[in-house]
Amino acid sequence: MTSTLRIGIAGLGRLGRRHAENLAFRVRGCQLVSACSPVAAELDAAQRELGVTRLHADFDAFVRDPDIDAVVLVTPTALHAEQVIAALAAAKHVFVEKPLALGVADCERVERAARAHADRVAMVGFVRRFDASYAHARAHIEQGGIGRPFLVRSQTCDLLDPSGAFLKFAPTSGGIYMDCSVHDIDLARWMLGSPRATRVFASGTIAVHDELAAIGDVDNGLAIVEFDGGARAVFYASRTFAHGHETQTEVIGTAGKLLVGAGAARDRLQIADAHGVRQLAVADFVERFADAFLHEMQAFVDACRGEQRLALTLNDATEATRIGQAITRSLKSAMPESV
Amino acid sequence: MTSTLRIGIAGLGRLGRRHAENLAFRVRGCQLVSACSPVAAELDAAQRELGVTRLHADFDAFVRDPDIDAVVLVTPTALHAEQVIAALAAAKHVFVEKPLALGVADCERVERAARAHADRVAMVGFVRRFDASYAHARAHIEQGGIGRPFLVRSQTCDLLDPSGAFLKFAPTSGGIYMDCSVHDIDLARWMLGSPRATRVFASGTIAVHDELAAIGDVDNGLAIVEFDGGARAVFYASRTFAHGHETQTEVIGTAGKLLVGAGAARDRLQIADAHGVRQLAVADFVERFADAFLHEMQAFVDACRGEQRLALTLNDATEATRIGQAITRSLKSAMPESV
Amino acid sequence: MTSTLRIGIAGLGRLGRRHAENLAFRVRGCQLVSACSPVAAELDAAQRELGVTRLHADFDAFVRDPDIDAVVLVTPTALHAEQVIAALAAAKHVFVEKPLALGVADCERVERAARAHADRVAMVGFVRRFDASYAHARAHIEQGGIGRPFLVRSQTCDLLDPSGAFLKFAPTSGGIYMDCSVHDIDLARWMLGSPRATRVFASGTIAVHDELAAIGDVDNGLAIVEFDGGARAVFYASRTFAHGHETQTEVIGTAGKLLVGAGAARDRLQIADAHGVRQLAVADFVERFADAFLHEMQAFVDACRGEQRLALTLNDATEATRIGQAITRSLKSAMPESV
Amino acid sequence: MTSTLRIGIAGLGRLGRRHAENLAFRVRGCQLVSACSPVAAELDAAQRELGVTRLHADFDAFVRDPDIDAVVLVTPTALHAEQVIAALAAAKHVFVEKPLALGVADCERVERAARAHADRVAMVGFVRRFDASYAHARAHIEQGGIGRPFLVRSQTCDLLDPSGAFLKFAPTSGGIYMDCSVHDIDLARWMLGSPRATRVFASGTIAVHDELAAIGDVDNGLAIVEFDGGARAVFYASRTFAHGHETQTEVIGTAGKLLVGAGAARDRLQIADAHGVRQLAVADFVERFADAFLHEMQAFVDACRGEQRLALTLNDATEATRIGQAITRSLKSAMPESV
Repeated sequence: MTSTLRIGIAGLGRLGRRHAENLAFRVRGCQLVSACSPVAAELDAAQRELGVTRLHADFDAFVRDPDIDAVVLVTPTALHAEQVIAALAAAKHVFVEKPLALGVADCERVERAARAHADRVAMVGFVRRFDASYAHARAHIEQGGIGRPFLVRSQTCDLLDPSGAFLKFAPTSGGIYMDCSVHDIDLARWMLGSPRATRVFASGTIAVHDELAAIGDVDNGLAIVEFDGGARAVFYASRTFAHGHETQTEVIGTAGKLLVGAGAARDRLQIADAHGVRQLAVADFVERFADAFLHEMQAFVDACRGEQRLALTLNDATEATRIGQAITRSLKSAMPESV
Repeated sequence: MTSTLRIGIAGLGRLGRRHAENLAFRVRGCQLVSACSPVAAELDAAQRELGVTRLHADFDAFVRDPDIDAVVLVTPTALHAEQVIAALAAAKHVFVEKPLALGVADCERVERAARAHADRVAMVGFVRRFDASYAHARAHIEQGGIGRPFLVRSQTCDLLDPSGAFLKFAPTSGGIYMDCSVHDIDLARWMLGSPRATRVFASGTIAVHDELAAIGDVDNGLAIVEFDGGARAVFYASRTFAHGHETQTEVIGTAGKLLVGAGAARDRLQIADAHGVRQLAVADFVERFADAFLHEMQAFVDACRGEQRLALTLNDATEATRIGQAITRSLKSAMPESV
Repeated sequence: MTSTLRIGIAGLGRLGRRHAENLAFRVRGCQLVSACSPVAAELDAAQRELGVTRLHADFDAFVRDPDIDAVVLVTPTALHAEQVIAALAAAKHVFVEKPLALGVADCERVERAARAHADRVAMVGFVRRFDASYAHARAHIEQGGIGRPFLVRSQTCDLLDPSGAFLKFAPTSGGIYMDCSVHDIDLARWMLGSPRATRVFASGTIAVHDELAAIGDVDNGLAIVEFDGGARAVFYASRTFAHGHETQTEVIGTAGKLLVGAGAARDRLQIADAHGVRQLAVADFVERFADAFLHEMQAFVDACRGEQRLALTLNDATEATRIGQAITRSLKSAMPESV
Repeated sequence: MTSTLRIGIAGLGRLGRRHAENLAFRVRGCQLVSACSPVAAELDAAQRELGVTRLHADFDAFVRDPDIDAVVLVTPTALHAEQVIAALAAAKHVFVEKPLALGVADCERVERAARAHADRVAMVGFVRRFDASYAHARAHIEQGGIGRPFLVRSQTCDLLDPSGAFLKFAPTSGGIYMDCSVHDIDLARWMLGSPRATRVFASGTIAVHDELAAIGDVDNGLAIVEFDGGARAVFYASRTFAHGHETQTEVIGTAGKLLVGAGAARDRLQIADAHGVRQLAVADFVERFADAFLHEMQAFVDACRGEQRLALTLNDATEATRIGQAITRSLKSAMPESV
């Protein structure tokens, strides 16, 4: 066995904490030794509950710590690019949550930095690629199971939060397409064999959260993407589903069709009562992708330790941002936009 | 085209009325010309709404009417055997609701009468054989799609009627197995290729309707049937389902398994809301088998007109009664019973 | 009972024949007395098998026949408008297959003719409105079951016909959106409460049938429709599904979501074998909507006989054509189009 | 945090290895330090791949090792009772795979030993209790979601192994009911609130593996269990399913019904192609219950560390054996047997 990977995590919010727990207790081949957060209580909890010994309020000190080999960044999107570049400069492997950046230029700067540190792993958290069902879908396509895939329909739809808590992050999230559809964009490219997107069209509506109008965002958005070679994708993102979180992706090929995630069932329990025959839905992406988050982090650690190569590249993140930004422009211009 | 079949119906209760409407308006090749009922209002409605012109309170006059070719009997089970024999004696084709009779001896008497009038059609209403899904299941088995079928699990489960209306008929219905499971018995024989049943065991419980204890019946019953050659069947009948009527049948073979009726969905509508992702269930067997009742009556008319032979025989009804009676005895003796 | 409606049918192709059989044998309150077709063999079969007594090769004679009260038109779309107007002029009730016409102006001419004969029923064959699942969906919405509906996703996807038989009709069908999506357009309007469409965008691709390029059509098409008030619809039409015909419609509201037709299962039979756990799919719209075609024709007859009013109006057909044409223009211009 | 639990595992076959990997890498609060196996290669692999440092061929030395706090026994059933007693005598916490023992007397001896070492955790591997869907089912029942549960239908059905590999273990496995249905027995008791079983009836058949006749076993078995108070259970075990492993449990109550595991889908991927619309099935119980095996071992470790009490008791195992043995007797006597 190669030596244990020493990891530090920056960002201990809800998702950061989830990653930290996986790294501390469930991912093999690593040790979570360091954490960075501006919130003292989060650091305190990391020490007490996760056994983290090196605590940082300052990112620079955190990232330069010679006693860590790799960093996991679950920080605000606006900080991603600089932090990834800093981590690479400090010779750390780096995992960063999606999206890599809201701007294509930033993504490309990160790509250049990664090329300059080609011996370091740099990975973006497109977690769905690590979900068993999506992985099986992709494998089925690669084996020719649906012929030539030419159309993807994909959605990321969140349970309505009547409190509107997400509104706090909405102005800096890049909008619904960058926040939600970026996963669908990546999935579409992955399933279709990474064709080049040429043009997009977006149209959305506000169903519940009227506050979004002021920032040019919507709570339900549709988008069509045209790819070179004729493939098409259509996306749907919603923040207002009544029954639960429903991530669903359909890949249509000349010899068959795949559908991942129909119905959003939480588990294998079916209830039959006065409401009919029903399954309860997953509440959010954290519940839906609990296993995938673990597999994703394991894949990162395995890659850092040289045990496995990643199929997912930084350029995949750049392309997802490029398409997501074009869709976001289209929502505002109400016209098709070139990618 | 051969001439139109002139039909009379005896019994205009809920199911009788359904048959009458089908015969009056939807079954091709026949005309509903006569009706028999002890209830004047029912006859009146048949005349007014269904255009029936010949109305009878007296069964003997009804069955001997030279202007009808065939009779459909939707009368109390206790009357079935005599009425079928009388109809055959009057040279009428005859359709009779299930079960043919509560006693095997009665069934065999009817069989003899039918043999003596071999040019007349005599058919029992095992309606599920005319349901598209069951027919597809049977065809799939015949094509070898599941290898050799060797085990059937089948259920007839009714929506709880808190009013307990069925209790009125319970004492004369022959018990839950003769009333409900007789369909499952027929399906099991049909799917398994009509092996000879040798032994049965029954066990039941009263979940809601305590009044049944007095007549030795239950509202939830299980039964196992052993067949010559090793095949097995297990039945479940319930009168207390909370979500709807659920008729379900599984046929297990050496190369596959068929399942008809999972989930009892009323239609193709799925609702996703605060109750989860759900389908509403069918309310009762009339809703579940609406199409089958029509196909069944069409099959009877087609057979009477010589356009099609029936696969379903009176002997199938005798065997279903034979097995159903053995199960009913087993419920009382609490021991296995020979068939 | 009012008197029996005497009906004539024009067009005895596949769908025409289906309508004719329903009218001859299963629809109550009517009699199929007349048929019109340029194909002698079809007329012959109608006489022999359906008992039709009045046979016409000439539409004018057919439509003016004083012995019929109503006509059912299953003729090429290009003839619809003139034939409906002629039927109304002859004081007949008229049912016409969808689409009412390829041009909005033609639709409006028909609407004017209908207003001038307001005592006659004029109905377009948007058959899905008569499907039980769609009717339940609509009723659930009207009862407030999903709050305010604001987004519809709907698809009409046909099983691939490797022979490409449909290509023969493609040049005159109006393209994939007028041929297939016109149903989805009507459903979207129906489910959303008939808002006014303002703008559309279409994008399509050719997956299999390269011949379509020459006529500017595609075999897989996407479209987004924007409605006044913020509602949105997204449509998908395909002629190349590998597993069967799959008509599916989702209506998303502020308090729930409805989905009609998921999975396209032919019936209630589930097969579990070496291929997994599966349901076979319906082959085509005729199989999927067999019951709806019957209910539709019954609704027409009931309306003609004054027993029931139709919710579906000619203007619904005009609006569907208006939107469908805008989508078709958008496919060609590759730009959003006003409706 | 309390100190890390030091664990030894005995038995490194397929399931033992699975437990060992979980303990080595995924269960929190413990360390896998010791292993015991008669197979040198298995010990070697445990050292090399799992980092186990203390290796034993001899069980006595293994169980008395003062440097371990707890043992996990994945050994042949015939050894369970003695080994659990030895582990308790050595003051170890002990986890043992199901069934606890083939004989009730052995189970009771173990119970007595456990009472004598009440400060030690003794747990049997009824893994399904730790599956999320079963846990949700149980919680739904406890909240009154289905009224009073009164009937359980439960099955354990394995994918046919044409090689018949299981036949090697069949003579010592206790037969199909002790090997497979023991899980269903435990689930039924758990879901019904642990009523006392009074009587059972079994009936089985050999569909494929004729060799079983020689040892009085079957490859498909049915059983009915009667409980005090009127509850009933019916079990089905099969070793010959064509499509995959299908564990399914239905709990029927006076106000609703729960169904866990319908369809046996491997994951959330649906394939639509020439075979229909389908989901692939899980291959075996290890795949189906992968998460549950982890949760189970975590529950054991948490209990040993005093962080959580177990609801599952040794007496549950005794009762499961008691019922399983009565069913097994019934299969042979072909008569009902008292429990």
